[in-house]
Amino acid sequence: MPHHQLAKLNDHGQRFWLDSLSRDMLDNGQLASRIREQGLSGITSNPAIFAKTMADSPAYDARIAAALNTLAEDGSAPAEAVYERLATDDVRDACDLLLPLHEASDGLDGFVSLEVSPHLAYDAVATRQQARELWDRVGRPNLFIKVPGTPQGLDAVEALLVDGIKVNITLLFGRDAYEETLQCYLRAMEQRLRDGKDLHSVASVASFFLSRIDTAVDRELRQRMGARVSAGLVAEAESLLGRTAVANAQLAYARYREVGESERWQRLAKAGARPQRLVWASTGTKDPSLSDTHYIDALILPETISTMPEATADAFNDHGRIEVPAPERFTEAATLLERLERNLAIDLDAITHQLVADGVQKFIDPYDQLLQRLAERMERFRDARAATGRASPLLGQAKRLRASVLRMTSHAGSGHATSSLSCADLITALFFHEMRWDPSAPGARDQDRFLLSKGHAAPILWAALFEAGAISTDPLTLRQHDSDLEGHPTPRNPWIPVATGSLGQGLSAVNGMALADRLDGIEARLFCLLGDGECSEGSVWEAAQFAADQGLGQVVAIVDANGLAQSGPAPYGHDTSVLAGRFRAFGWRALEIDGHDFAAILPALKATRASDSGAPGDRPTAIIARTIKGKGVSFLEGAAGWHGKALDEEQLAQALAGIAAPEVRLEMEPRRVPRAEPRRATIARNTREDAQEYSQPPLKVAYERGEEVATRAAFGTALRKLGSRFADLVVVDGDVKNSTKTELFAETYPERFVEARIAEQNMLGVALGLAASGKRPCVATFAAFLTRAFDSIRMAAHSQHPRMLICGSHAGVSIGEDGPSQMGLEDIAMFRALNGTTVLYPSDGVSAERLTEAGLEHDGMVYLRTTRGKTPVLYPSDERFEIGGSKTLVESLDDRLTLVAAGITVHTALEASARLREQGVHTRVIDAYSIKPLDVATLQRAAEETGTLLVVEDHHRDAGLGDAVAAQIGRLARVFRLGVSGDPRSGAPEQLLERHRLSGRQIEREALAIAA
Amino acid sequence: MPHHQLAKLNDHGQRFWLDSLSRDMLDNGQLASRIREQGLSGITSNPAIFAKTMADSPAYDARIAAALNTLAEDGSAPAEAVYERLATDDVRDACDLLLPLHEASDGLDGFVSLEVSPHLAYDAVATRQQARELWDRVGRPNLFIKVPGTPQGLDAVEALLVDGIKVNITLLFGRDAYEETLQCYLRAMEQRLRDGKDLHSVASVASFFLSRIDTAVDRELRQRMGARVSAGLVAEAESLLGRTAVANAQLAYARYREVGESERWQRLAKAGARPQRLVWASTGTKDPSLSDTHYIDALILPETISTMPEATADAFNDHGRIEVPAPERFTEAATLLERLERNLAIDLDAITHQLVADGVQKFIDPYDQLLQRLAERMERFRDARAATGRASPLLGQAKRLRASVLRMTSHAGSGHATSSLSCADLITALFFHEMRWDPSAPGARDQDRFLLSKGHAAPILWAALFEAGAISTDPLTLRQHDSDLEGHPTPRNPWIPVATGSLGQGLSAVNGMALADRLDGIEARLFCLLGDGECSEGSVWEAAQFAADQGLGQVVAIVDANGLAQSGPAPYGHDTSVLAGRFRAFGWRALEIDGHDFAAILPALKATRASDSGAPGDRPTAIIARTIKGKGVSFLEGAAGWHGKALDEEQLAQALAGIAAPEVRLEMEPRRVPRAEPRRATIARNTREDAQEYSQPPLKVAYERGEEVATRAAFGTALRKLGSRFADLVVVDGDVKNSTKTELFAETYPERFVEARIAEQNMLGVALGLAASGKRPCVATFAAFLTRAFDSIRMAAHSQHPRMLICGSHAGVSIGEDGPSQMGLEDIAMFRALNGTTVLYPSDGVSAERLTEAGLEHDGMVYLRTTRGKTPVLYPSDERFEIGGSKTLVESLDDRLTLVAAGITVHTALEASARLREQGVHTRVIDAYSIKPLDVATLQRAAEETGTLLVVEDHHRDAGLGDAVAAQIGRLARVFRLGVSGDPRSGAPEQLLERHRLSGRQIEREALAIAA
Repeated sequence: MPHHQLAKLNDHGQRFWLDSLSRDMLDNGQLASRIREQGLSGITSNPAIFAKTMADSPAYDARIAAALNTLAEDGSAPAEAVYERLATDDVRDACDLLLPLHEASDGLDGFVSLEVSPHLAYDAVATRQQARELWDRVGRPNLFIKVPGTPQGLDAVEALLVDGIKVNITLLFGRDAYEETLQCYLRAMEQRLRDGKDLHSVASVASFFLSRIDTAVDRELRQRMGARVSAGLVAEAESLLGRTAVANAQLAYARYREVGESERWQRLAKAGARPQRLVWASTGTKDPSLSDTHYIDALILPETISTMPEATADAFNDHGRIEVPAPERFTEAATLLERLERNLAIDLDAITHQLVADGVQKFIDPYDQLLQRLAERMERFRDARAATGRASPLLGQAKRLRASVLRMTSHAGSGHATSSLSCADLITALFFHEMRWDPSAPGARDQDRFLLSKGHAAPILWAALFEAGAISTDPLTLRQHDSDLEGHPTPRNPWIPVATGSLGQGLSAVNGMALADRLDGIEARLFCLLGDGECSEGSVWEAAQFAADQGLGQVVAIVDANGLAQSGPAPYGHDTSVLAGRFRAFGWRALEIDGHDFAAILPALKATRASDSGAPGDRPTAIIARTIKGKGVSFLEGAAGWHGKALDEEQLAQALAGIAAPEVRLEMEPRRVPRAEPRRATIARNTREDAQEYSQPPLKVAYERGEEVATRAAFGTALRKLGSRFADLVVVDGDVKNSTKTELFAETYPERFVEARIAEQNMLGVALGLAASGKRPCVATFAAFLTRAFDSIRMAAHSQHPRMLICGSHAGVSIGEDGPSQMGLEDIAMFRALNGTTVLYPSDGVSAERLTEAGLEHDGMVYLRTTRGKTPVLYPSDERFEIGGSKTLVESLDDRLTLVAAGITVHTALEASARLREQGVHTRVIDAYSIKPLDVATLQRAAEETGTLLVVEDHHRDAGLGDAVAAQIGRLARVFRLGVSGDPRSGAPEQLLERHRLSGRQIEREALAIAA
Repeated sequence: MPHHQLAKLNDHGQRFWLDSLSRDMLDNGQLASRIREQGLSGITSNPAIFAKTMADSPAYDARIAAALNTLAEDGSAPAEAVYERLATDDVRDACDLLLPLHEASDGLDGFVSLEVSPHLAYDAVATRQQARELWDRVGRPNLFIKVPGTPQGLDAVEALLVDGIKVNITLLFGRDAYEETLQCYLRAMEQRLRDGKDLHSVASVASFFLSRIDTAVDRELRQRMGARVSAGLVAEAESLLGRTAVANAQLAYARYREVGESERWQRLAKAGARPQRLVWASTGTKDPSLSDTHYIDALILPETISTMPEATADAFNDHGRIEVPAPERFTEAATLLERLERNLAIDLDAITHQLVADGVQKFIDPYDQLLQRLAERMERFRDARAATGRASPLLGQAKRLRASVLRMTSHAGSGHATSSLSCADLITALFFHEMRWDPSAPGARDQDRFLLSKGHAAPILWAALFEAGAISTDPLTLRQHDSDLEGHPTPRNPWIPVATGSLGQGLSAVNGMALADRLDGIEARLFCLLGDGECSEGSVWEAAQFAADQGLGQVVAIVDANGLAQSGPAPYGHDTSVLAGRFRAFGWRALEIDGHDFAAILPALKATRASDSGAPGDRPTAIIARTIKGKGVSFLEGAAGWHGKALDEEQLAQALAGIAAPEVRLEMEPRRVPRAEPRRATIARNTREDAQEYSQPPLKVAYERGEEVATRAAFGTALRKLGSRFADLVVVDGDVKNSTKTELFAETYPERFVEARIAEQNMLGVALGLAASGKRPCVATFAAFLTRAFDSIRMAAHSQHPRMLICGSHAGVSIGEDGPSQMGLEDIAMFRALNGTTVLYPSDGVSAERLTEAGLEHDGMVYLRTTRGKTPVLYPSDERFEIGGSKTLVESLDDRLTLVAAGITVHTALEASARLREQGVHTRVIDAYSIKPLDVATLQRAAEETGTLLVVEDHHRDAGLGDAVAAQIGRLARVFRLGVSGDPRSGAPEQLLERHRLSGRQIEREALAIAA
């Protein structure tokens, strides 16, 4: 049998009350067991206690909901009424628990105290009125109404006692106030006696406070113990620490005994009056240097009550010391208080008076906060009630989507079922509730749009589109060869703006779509669903920075934090705070929610509306949703080893039975987004002359033959001119506008110029998003740095041929001193290996401008390669350059070799040709500016006429122009290649061309060797 | 002339004092002008005021330093002594400012008050002693020592006054305490009279407090105004708000007048005693509903002083109202205080008594905080003094580096001078102070190492290495063709671990170096210098996440936040908090410092030592350093348009003159890092059998011919086996270990397996860092996702041929249903276009294992391409596969065509060959498993013998194997290519091979067409 020190207090004439009450305690049997085992004989409550228990405990959920319904049908009850309902319910239940004891003790024990509103502490009339209401509402004989012992409180107390209402007078700190309390009780009993009323049925206790007194006095004592203070004074102050409250209480108790022995009381006692016992309150120790049972141990006195917080009760029960003080202590106590005043100038009266006011405030603050908190909880209940009304069809629809996902993946035999199930509720909330969209209008931009960045969850997207009536392809054709429901979404399906499936790219595309919307005055929201594992991709943070810096408040990233990546746990499991913290650090607003709870999902989505009071303004929003991978199917939930796997027939049947999806699908109402006037920004504001000059092809170009012009500069010049012709042209830079020369466009069309900073993946993604929204993006950086974005470019190529111009500047070793890290030597290989791309490589200012024009006119992805250094203008200004063409610059009937060159090597090839001609070797020179598609016809003719081709390119020797020519022409002639091999390095451009055998002299030497 | 309402107070017999004092005020002439223009005639100070001014103001820097030196030679003076020094200095200077007024007014005006330590408020003896000390230390006649009006304080005051020390009695709230003060003054004067001392030379004032009383009383009044309180009570409470303090003060003033008229006083006055004037203190309005001059306006009474905080003084000067109260007000005041007590139970005595204790505490807290703060500042000064000792040679060295940078860039005619200057101090601190390194040991790993992620700042690195004697190459050869001092660093210079210059990659390499150190028990730190613009690269955040998740506490990222990117401002200018917040959100410790202040740089670097008390433990550290681009050259500092530009001769001369670098360079002491025992982790803990079985080449392989095995699985198997042979093998995964099958290695060698999650750029960078530290990394992901890391791979290729094996799985359309996003179709093109790479592509289990072995043995970068689906084993288990070889699988004298295939297409080619043979068409079949280098000899023979080659590959048709063969063999035979063109999509593998003309049937058809 466990040791119960508390139960022993009874043997010493003291009762143990608990200074705590909550619904949990009532429900979990704690109170009952304390009564049974620890001799608990009473309970006190106060607003601060209720504030702690009621503010957030789910134990009150049902009661708040019920109170809302019963107090006012429309749920509009004031918070105070709900508080009183909850408090009186708790107190009444506690009274009932203690009623047997109350009755068995002839009304001596088994009380529960309930306090009036702390706001009424100084209003006798209002106190009396509320005490009466609470008394009636609880309706139990073992109730104490708790009233503070202020002068007005005591006025009310006297009247209440006369009326027969039982009162616990509280907030007694000073002995003067206690004296008033005693007198008040005596007067009330005398009045009842005079009125001929029964005295035995009335009860009262006086709650005398302890630890707060020491806290206040000790603070002043410590003031006396600072640096440089005399040692004697410090010692005196130190010796009194932690002793005032007990001494003060001992003197109060002495006064209680004194009154009890008075004739005046004896007369009342004979008439049946019960003594007004002292209750020791504020018994929890605050000072860590004192024992945690300090205030209990010292005051185990007959006919008193000790009311303890739970921790103190448990501590005493475990190791409390029972030691009844000798009466001499009372003299010691008096001496101690004298020392305080005399030696240390501590005014205990002033302190205790102030403690009353502080005590009232200590209830007012939590009471007001509790009402505030209750009002919020009530609001949430009203919201939840409304949301439940909306959620219940959504719950059914989510089941239908889950069932559909399982059916289609099982039918396909593969596909990401579990990654689809985790976001089923999020997708349902988006497509069937929050998004304003029109299932009949896949191409329309005046609707909220969705992009599945975690592309492997395609099944849930197909399911949602099918169920909403947006597509008619049978979901069971998932992943089949002729279906547009691919394993990862591609724009072969009309609802897919860009291909996804290589993780971390969606948010950048959404950024581009948002920019396009902003240019066109469309106020749609753009939702992007990401996985949690996916957020390890740096491109996500490039996109996050961009969205925040550009103020794209309409962008919403939803992270499906299912805690499991492909091959193990996701980095931060279900701790959504990590990603939320990162989004916040990148300038986003971040919300963390339960991704399976519509009551959490719907408000979070609502908060992304521009019209919502919590709308993000210019800040994008990230919603980090805790979800369960495989949610909805018991044996898949959170289970490892199911990534990307489908269920077999038996498992499917079991899962579908468990889901029990409703028969009927939820109809959704098509909606569109209001479309504002397009911003001025979209209208070219170039000079009128420019517009006249350059509005029609062919572009007017003006260079002198032989003039030195860098092709990168000519590209920038052309862009600027064409800004007036193409109102949909948007230029995206990666902090190199002064190198690529897009700055020329930026100066004229700042509204259509986007600074994407040093973040090439996002830069390409933004361009793709712009293209997906009908813009004509041009993106430019060093050719070398495009390798950084190769995956983004690859996915763009899988996005059904978006119209975009990508310019890579600083191609080849001819950049010179900056060295290999800045040299584009792999760019032609990259673009050649992608489907649907065009590769153009101008050699002079005229061709650079013309090819820029051709690239922008072309309906597809075009790569334009430019050179850092200046080269002489070769062509007349009116020369035309077609995609798929070439220029034969030197030609004769005697040609024995054709030099095929592009860009910078056109110039060195011309130099070599001239040198060779001097030696009697005639070579043809072809400017193969269209590397893809190649001008096969011209090359074939050259092959036939000269027999041998030498391809010279400032690019890695493999996979570039040389390979392209060899692959196409190799069957007709011998094809030799000169390109960069060996490690490149820093040096003067001419030295490097020489070193890599691309100079005129080296070409000459190679040609002679071949010819030999 | 400006309006000065303050000056008018004099006309009404009131003096204006300022309740504020600071060094700034003294120095900037504010006090002097207030004396001149506003009639300021006194100043009060207190510990809270000094706490505000002294805690952080740089105005005290010099004085703290001086106090430290003069108080104790070793700088060990206690903070209190320094405080007293600073305070008495300020007060003395203020006294001197007011001395003329003091003298002109016959000692009536021009006082400054200095308070005793608030800790002495209840110690008469100590108060008296300290007051005497302060009095002597200031040594001015117009000083008031301020003493609180506690009983003990007044005891001291009486004695002080008798001694002739002038006293301002403060913290007077209650009229009872004021009465004591009056009596105390009377007694002191009477004593002096008795002692025959002069009375006229003594002065005293009584500071009576105002607004704090209202704050306390109004708080209680508001308690009476809560919900449900009776309307009458609320109205009464409301009517008294904000009125108590003034009423209380009026009554105190009435008492002052009363005493002044008493006989007792008249006797003293006749003997020369001066009245003890009342000072209104705490006059700043706290309640926003009251006028900001409330406490001034109401108490403009003759012979009083109003001491005001600056804001109140300025407010009154602007719009104060001068309205002298009629005497009847005093009666009103008494009534008001009665109402408080009677109607509202507010105990003003209790409140005022408590306010004294609170007031003392309100000085103790800031006083103690100030001493704490001063102790910290003193510590910083001691640190700084120590650092200055260290810094002064560093300052000179930094100048030398700056001069060197300018000389070399000007000589080169290009290079990033300004980006080098911004980090010159950081680099100097690292290389000449903090890093333990040995200039004679470029290859050694047992030293702290440095990586310049912002590679364009190469000049500063070369300068530092040269100055430290680590390199001997003349810095003036910067960027020259034959120098290893390249424009951006490459490992051609022995101090460079990996090439940098493509931004955002350094941190990942450092991560890999740190992992290698951890495996080998080397406790070096790894410093990585980044630019601020660079931090827009997502790869930085991939690396940041990795470092934190792996607990790489030895990694230190230093961000040179110079606020300027290449083409405009960096994203967050000099606001270092943004990047610091991001690093913190990614799990790092982040420090923000001034990157040009050695006193800030050195402690920040010191805090990264494992032995430092603030050491980061397992958390990496980011130091975000605010710097100025171009720092050190006046016309370059923060100027736009200088990125990457060099100075001309004249500018250089001007800059060098400004820098004035010292002649002599700073010698640095070579140091090494202690090297611990290697962790067990590095020792293969495979089974003994494995070690015996697989320790020697050739690798034992065991498959049956015809057995179905996926090459990716065979790769994983081989890795696991080879783990025992290569103790330096470390495998890095991107969350696809169950797909690439590196999980087989992970299970056996978890310590050498690194989960780099879905972040391919960092994954490659980590592998490069491992290679740079002598490990043999193998990294694997889907071939498609290697495109994500192309720039990282490219930079690795520029890093002088690191030894690493890169495996790309899921190659080609044959992956099937997952669709194009997951298909590697560009990987061969990528690796072919890089210098020094090897490309291997096994077709069955045997070749996959053998090529894995060959790849790991090879000293360079090897790409291994594997296939998702299972393929039949073609080769006997003991078949050998050399890099540069091929296998001729079908061959006859009748061959009219050679099918060149690799990987999956070897199988479809064999199928086609068999079909063709049935039709009498003999074809040779070559497995070209070594795509780079190609087995040219075998292909040439086939070309010669069969005349036509048909290359078949599951890769994009361009830039892959077909191109390679065409380029090499095209001159000898006709080369046709079959590869993937057109948009790939989801579907069954067989369907997709068929669709893209790679199936046996399609090859057969193409072969027949060619043959025809």
